[in-house]
Amino acid sequence: MATCSADLAPLLGPNATAAADYICNKFSDTSFAVDNTYLLFSAYLVFSMQLGFAMLCAGSVRAKNTMNIMLTNVLDAAIGGLFYYLFGFAFAFGSPSNGFIGRHHFALRSVPSSSFDYSNFLYQWAFAIAAAGITSGSIAERTQFVSYLIYSSFLTGFVYPVVSHWFWATDGWASAFRADDFLFGSGVIDFAGSGVVHVVGGVAGLWGALIEGPRIGRFDHSGRSVALRGHSATLVVIGTFMLWFGWYGFNPGSFNKISSFYTSGNYYGQWSAVGRTAVTTTLAGCTAALTTLFGKRILTGHWNVTDVCNGLLGGFAAITAGCSIVEPWAAIICGFVAAWVLISCNKLAEKVKFDDPLEAAQLHGGCGAWGIFYSSVCFGKVCEGSLPQQASSIWVVYGRWRETVGCSYYPNSGHCWLGECYNGDFVLFSS
Amino acid sequence: MATCSADLAPLLGPNATAAADYICNKFSDTSFAVDNTYLLFSAYLVFSMQLGFAMLCAGSVRAKNTMNIMLTNVLDAAIGGLFYYLFGFAFAFGSPSNGFIGRHHFALRSVPSSSFDYSNFLYQWAFAIAAAGITSGSIAERTQFVSYLIYSSFLTGFVYPVVSHWFWATDGWASAFRADDFLFGSGVIDFAGSGVVHVVGGVAGLWGALIEGPRIGRFDHSGRSVALRGHSATLVVIGTFMLWFGWYGFNPGSFNKISSFYTSGNYYGQWSAVGRTAVTTTLAGCTAALTTLFGKRILTGHWNVTDVCNGLLGGFAAITAGCSIVEPWAAIICGFVAAWVLISCNKLAEKVKFDDPLEAAQLHGGCGAWGIFYSSVCFGKVCEGSLPQQASSIWVVYGRWRETVGCSYYPNSGHCWLGECYNGDFVLFSS
Amino acid sequence: MATCSADLAPLLGPNATAAADYICNKFSDTSFAVDNTYLLFSAYLVFSMQLGFAMLCAGSVRAKNTMNIMLTNVLDAAIGGLFYYLFGFAFAFGSPSNGFIGRHHFALRSVPSSSFDYSNFLYQWAFAIAAAGITSGSIAERTQFVSYLIYSSFLTGFVYPVVSHWFWATDGWASAFRADDFLFGSGVIDFAGSGVVHVVGGVAGLWGALIEGPRIGRFDHSGRSVALRGHSATLVVIGTFMLWFGWYGFNPGSFNKISSFYTSGNYYGQWSAVGRTAVTTTLAGCTAALTTLFGKRILTGHWNVTDVCNGLLGGFAAITAGCSIVEPWAAIICGFVAAWVLISCNKLAEKVKFDDPLEAAQLHGGCGAWGIFYSSVCFGKVCEGSLPQQASSIWVVYGRWRETVGCSYYPNSGHCWLGECYNGDFVLFSS
Repeated sequence: MATCSADLAPLLGPNATAAADYICNKFSDTSFAVDNTYLLFSAYLVFSMQLGFAMLCAGSVRAKNTMNIMLTNVLDAAIGGLFYYLFGFAFAFGSPSNGFIGRHHFALRSVPSSSFDYSNFLYQWAFAIAAAGITSGSIAERTQFVSYLIYSSFLTGFVYPVVSHWFWATDGWASAFRADDFLFGSGVIDFAGSGVVHVVGGVAGLWGALIEGPRIGRFDHSGRSVALRGHSATLVVIGTFMLWFGWYGFNPGSFNKISSFYTSGNYYGQWSAVGRTAVTTTLAGCTAALTTLFGKRILTGHWNVTDVCNGLLGGFAAITAGCSIVEPWAAIICGFVAAWVLISCNKLAEKVKFDDPLEAAQLHGGCGAWGIFYSSVCFGKVCEGSLPQQASSIWVVYGRWRETVGCSYYPNSGHCWLGECYNGDFVLFSS
Repeated sequence: MATCSADLAPLLGPNATAAADYICNKFSDTSFAVDNTYLLFSAYLVFSMQLGFAMLCAGSVRAKNTMNIMLTNVLDAAIGGLFYYLFGFAFAFGSPSNGFIGRHHFALRSVPSSSFDYSNFLYQWAFAIAAAGITSGSIAERTQFVSYLIYSSFLTGFVYPVVSHWFWATDGWASAFRADDFLFGSGVIDFAGSGVVHVVGGVAGLWGALIEGPRIGRFDHSGRSVALRGHSATLVVIGTFMLWFGWYGFNPGSFNKISSFYTSGNYYGQWSAVGRTAVTTTLAGCTAALTTLFGKRILTGHWNVTDVCNGLLGGFAAITAGCSIVEPWAAIICGFVAAWVLISCNKLAEKVKFDDPLEAAQLHGGCGAWGIFYSSVCFGKVCEGSLPQQASSIWVVYGRWRETVGCSYYPNSGHCWLGECYNGDFVLFSS
Repeated sequence: MATCSADLAPLLGPNATAAADYICNKFSDTSFAVDNTYLLFSAYLVFSMQLGFAMLCAGSVRAKNTMNIMLTNVLDAAIGGLFYYLFGFAFAFGSPSNGFIGRHHFALRSVPSSSFDYSNFLYQWAFAIAAAGITSGSIAERTQFVSYLIYSSFLTGFVYPVVSHWFWATDGWASAFRADDFLFGSGVIDFAGSGVVHVVGGVAGLWGALIEGPRIGRFDHSGRSVALRGHSATLVVIGTFMLWFGWYGFNPGSFNKISSFYTSGNYYGQWSAVGRTAVTTTLAGCTAALTTLFGKRILTGHWNVTDVCNGLLGGFAAITAGCSIVEPWAAIICGFVAAWVLISCNKLAEKVKFDDPLEAAQLHGGCGAWGIFYSSVCFGKVCEGSLPQQASSIWVVYGRWRETVGCSYYPNSGHCWLGECYNGDFVLFSS
């Protein structure tokens, strides 16, 4: 502090440029410190979801298979660590590259740089192993251990990275940072990975479960469904709460930075958007849980804790795409529909004799797909005529509150959410 | 950074006011970012207490009732999410209002604003569901599921919000922000909610347990007490540790902000007060655990893990009121007494044939009440004659260290802790 | 903010020194807030390792001993809280003192000060109880409860503090802050406590287990080893994941501060070093887990989840010493060797009929010792001729990237990691 004063005092007098540089460098340092703190702790929360997946799996399988599924869950994280370090991160974010796959940063070469710090790698690794965690449930109780190792390595080291490159890397072919318009002209709006993580995990699980076929005894000789209950509701609840806890790293953490302001000196900045994301996430999950509770009660006549937990997680999987751009009320709608999507997918799965011990394909695949659809089609509208680059200023009309802001997400995309073009200005509004 | 310099350089030379505005806005942005990061992660920790309550309940009931109590714990959080969003937050903090109940911010209308960001809502929601979590234990093993749903909704949507309005909203009738003096003229000093959360949860549990009566078999025909042991000490320990972990969000988090300084450039600021709060919380719980261990050994001749866990939590419930204002040594006294309060309440409960499977009414109600009494009566003394507004400066005598500070808690209350008025100055001291 | 501007504006014009003081004080406040936030949340994570140790112990013992071991785990934390407050912190960091033991700050006297805030105490307390947590496993299933209490109090109140004084206090006799050269002339480089925490815990466990002898039935009449399996792999996995989660507080948290810059305005600062530490920690653990998986498969023909968990934790224990100074690739080597160290120690233990139910002595003692050796001997080389104090500038050659930096760890030690003296400059490089 004394040094700081001694350095700064002579600058403030005669030398405005040096003074400005000195002060601005200090602000820049502070932002790095705050943003890295934020991102690292978010990464730790996302990592804690592995415990959630492990407990969810352990509780949902029969006691004799617990040991096996626990081992695969520990190994998902361990294999993911090595493979995502060696290849995965490079395939996903190794830019400049083509639209299909990245090709830099193998084994963290050239990291840290001004684009990526170690915290970014850690955060993305935690996402990659979450995709593997989703999948482990689908093929539980009937998969050879060695096959699973190969499957999991391939998923975290190749499949997930490539898909995340498509959507999230600046030069991915479907990236929202590009001016191309997919999905009914709206662009794919997948903020935290309903598609990139949950649909990828869900589809991987779907194929795994299809190839392996149902567990022995899951459907009887006449083809009727026989419930093979998990052995511990307690473990399912531990898993669910840990996933809920971790989701606060997953969704609000996906902003990566928290210290960006929209208008300097105003109470509303990226910190508020981060907070809103935590709120929309919570509300979608809560609504889905309650919808499932009453929906299943009406359909089956029972109250069931495992169903409620799955409903809750389905709501989270759905809101993951739009968590940063929808209003709280819209999150409630998202969660309400997600619960019915899950119930329908489960009905359908039973019809076609598809057996997924954790409903992972239905939950992450089905609800995740609904989430992308909802955020992209209902909340993404192309702004015709004027792109943000050409707009003289950018407005956000948010609730009853309106302010000129810097564009906070997907800044070069030409997309606006619920957006319109008005008088040459680019207008974003989210309600 | 380059932009920042380019903006700042011309200001520093000719235009002092614009330069000052620019720099101060950046500092304000930074504080928002730091404080929101702090509050959001604290909220996540408080949320993790739900897992703690769920495990504590699961372990403390008999195996056959696990499924049911798990379901109620998941639903506490889910129902709380919706109801606190729709009404609860408005009833609690919807100011301006009357002293009894708030009436703004229904469904988060007008949030964010300069008073409340989304992070405040999330933090308060986590508190509301903690109150419900406390209650769920008291009426375990004998409550109809639908009754519980109504009870829990009413608690998080109405009862808890109204009580928190009374004590914590600026215009609550018993708020420490007012100049009125309750509780032996000291004002109710309930920093993090020994009363608002723990006594409320405990009293709700007390009435529930009274109305429902003891579990079948809890007292035999001759009226003697029969222990109905919980089925898993392991789950009780998981629950206890998760609650301990979450309490670091609960107590130190209640400052809401961490970046406030008392004297700029000094190592002692709100960050130190936050740290001291974490330390006092730890010491009170540890002392209560050890006191219970040896106290019960003397009384019953056994070492018992469940008792130690409950003693620990009783210490936490008691220190919650005064955590921010007592010295570490005073926290040890608080925890020591709390352990005996719990032991006495349990004896009394057995005498009057009151049955609370988790001792929640005794623990949160009894120890919470002791905590309020201790912090308000022993550490709150009205400063007669001069209110802070009129004082020429404010001093804190803290340990052997003395400094002029800004008033950090309850700034308009006219209360001081262990305070005196000295030479027209307003003196706060906490030891 | 308005106040800030009003204060700053007149200063910027006429009074450069006052302006500089004002601005620098604000930066200093911000750093305190950010660093304390970082350290407190790291402390909470380290605390959560207690749940990890408790679950690891619970799962690794036979069902009948669960209750007992759970109780000791809760009490480790509680006793540690009181004793570390009363004596431990003073013995460890009460400087100025002699090289053997500290003698200030009993019961937190003179805290906070410019050297120690409450957050430092909380962080160190969480470390002390981790050492006790390690030990509790070694003597499980055959220790009298009262003996354990005395043992645990002595460990957290005296043994661990004294050893941490030797290595970590500025005036400890083996401190890396001194110019003395131990361990083959490199100095003991133990950044986060492979030695101070893990070897201490491991050796304490070793002696405990030696004195008590093997559990009854562990070796049969002819001296052959009989496996006494733990009763729950699920609890072992919960414990492992919680420890992994907590280790992100343990290793990256050991920097204590995150907001220090190396060159102001550059993307690479202590935040990057913190992130790199999280990455090296992850990679060492993952590698050790996979090495153990395949190593044990080759040796025993089985895939075993408990072995993999122990391997993982062995990797963490080993990287703890060097986590802040090694490159990611070097962390992989560290983890690979750690797995074989653990396998060998376990073989040896079986040979000499040493029985440690959790392999704690082998794991924390053996792998911890390997970690110190690796970081000190392979990555610590004394810079002959010129000490940092005398060097005209300090360089870091890090990967392919080179920059003048402030020395970030052990600044007065005269040690450099993989260091050389070059042209009168002091060169640190870590790859």
